[in-house]
Amino acid sequence: MPVAMADRIWTAALVVIGDEILSGRTQDRNVAQIATWLNVQGIRLAEVRVVGDRTAAIIEAVNALRARNDYLFTTGGIGPTHDDITVDAIAEALGLSVVYHPQALAILESHYRSRGEQLTEARKRMARAPEGAELIENRLSGAPGIRIGNVFVMAGVPHITAGMLDALTGTLEGGAPLVSRTIGCWVAESEVADLLREAERRHEGVAIGSYPFFRDGKVGANFVVRSTDAALADACIEDVTSRLESAGYSVVAGGI
Amino acid sequence: MPVAMADRIWTAALVVIGDEILSGRTQDRNVAQIATWLNVQGIRLAEVRVVGDRTAAIIEAVNALRARNDYLFTTGGIGPTHDDITVDAIAEALGLSVVYHPQALAILESHYRSRGEQLTEARKRMARAPEGAELIENRLSGAPGIRIGNVFVMAGVPHITAGMLDALTGTLEGGAPLVSRTIGCWVAESEVADLLREAERRHEGVAIGSYPFFRDGKVGANFVVRSTDAALADACIEDVTSRLESAGYSVVAGGI
Repeated sequence: MPVAMADRIWTAALVVIGDEILSGRTQDRNVAQIATWLNVQGIRLAEVRVVGDRTAAIIEAVNALRARNDYLFTTGGIGPTHDDITVDAIAEALGLSVVYHPQALAILESHYRSRGEQLTEARKRMARAPEGAELIENRLSGAPGIRIGNVFVMAGVPHITAGMLDALTGTLEGGAPLVSRTIGCWVAESEVADLLREAERRHEGVAIGSYPFFRDGKVGANFVVRSTDAALADACIEDVTSRLESAGYSVVAGGI
Repeated sequence: MPVAMADRIWTAALVVIGDEILSGRTQDRNVAQIATWLNVQGIRLAEVRVVGDRTAAIIEAVNALRARNDYLFTTGGIGPTHDDITVDAIAEALGLSVVYHPQALAILESHYRSRGEQLTEARKRMARAPEGAELIENRLSGAPGIRIGNVFVMAGVPHITAGMLDALTGTLEGGAPLVSRTIGCWVAESEVADLLREAERRHEGVAIGSYPFFRDGKVGANFVVRSTDAALADACIEDVTSRLESAGYSVVAGGI
């Protein structure tokens, strides 16, 4: 029997670019958004780096991560202003020159014309791309994202990023989607640590996460079983549930 | 005149540890929270990495970042369950063994005794620390954070992290706090890209960020001037304001 292709794990990395994230001004939403989207594509988000608007930092992160992951995504720094340096940094990382992408120019021209506005020099900046790049459609604000090799350059504003992810849905090769099963329990996680460890040990191919919380004056925890094999995840969550119930705890399906 | 010490820029890095962040299950809040806190301490958050609950990934990130920053913070993975591997990974990264920290044991014993509960083996795990570590107080849930050299190991649950930051406030050497000044304008940022670039060029020691948004059917942008020199930030934001007003835009102080 040949090795099942479903066994291959596809990974992606993400480089979040922007001083506004590192200064605390802006709460990042793209890590969670892209992670969730990748799960559905059968690709696992393996690592994330957040770097400022500095060419050397972007190049270092991009080159380290694109080499060891199937896909590399970036968010941020592709607008028209002086602090938008992502395209130049990516091109430098890949040893490519930056050109005006003809299709991007046409998209921007038509976008602004339809609004009775001009394609100014500043706006033309948003049509710059490493040579050989393809575009990622952006229905919301015209300025497209960029795909070059295994690198995907996307907007930083979360709802525009979402539109670009939408345009990419189903176009990337991946493996089996990661599924998760969650249960909740009003228990201090330290009370059931051995039980969880034992359940994970018994079910190869799953990972169990324990996420404690404090709510309404009581401690509790959600337990999340993750696997690319839905049957395995189901079996494991049933096992954890019955172990908790046998220990006298009541379990809330779906989590608390 | 001696070189002013305020000129030295102190930097910190952050390693966010947890499968729940990379799976998209949990929205990280610690990057923004720690960044904001660091600004007040006069320390700049220079880079962030998010890694999963894997020893090798934690070690790689910790060793790369602690070497090139004044401080390294980690969040996550210090609870009592099997997926909490941060302490062991940090110890391995630093070439130290893991011991029960006597003071941490005493804190946990008293914490649980006061609640009429036992210090079980699982709970004792939370008193493990690399040899030679100091503790970071945690008034909320007992289990302390850890300081070892320039590495600060903190909880992942944001309000517990907040308590630990509170305990550290004023104890770290830093430089001048980073200040920021914000104005808002109902303008497409591409319209004023040249103006911003010119203003930044004129004021050495500031960085201007441009953050576009789309709200109430209109495009706008906030412009943020950042500097460790408050007078410089003030002068630059005044310059940007008067340039925008001269160009016919009305400016909203403090941002939109």
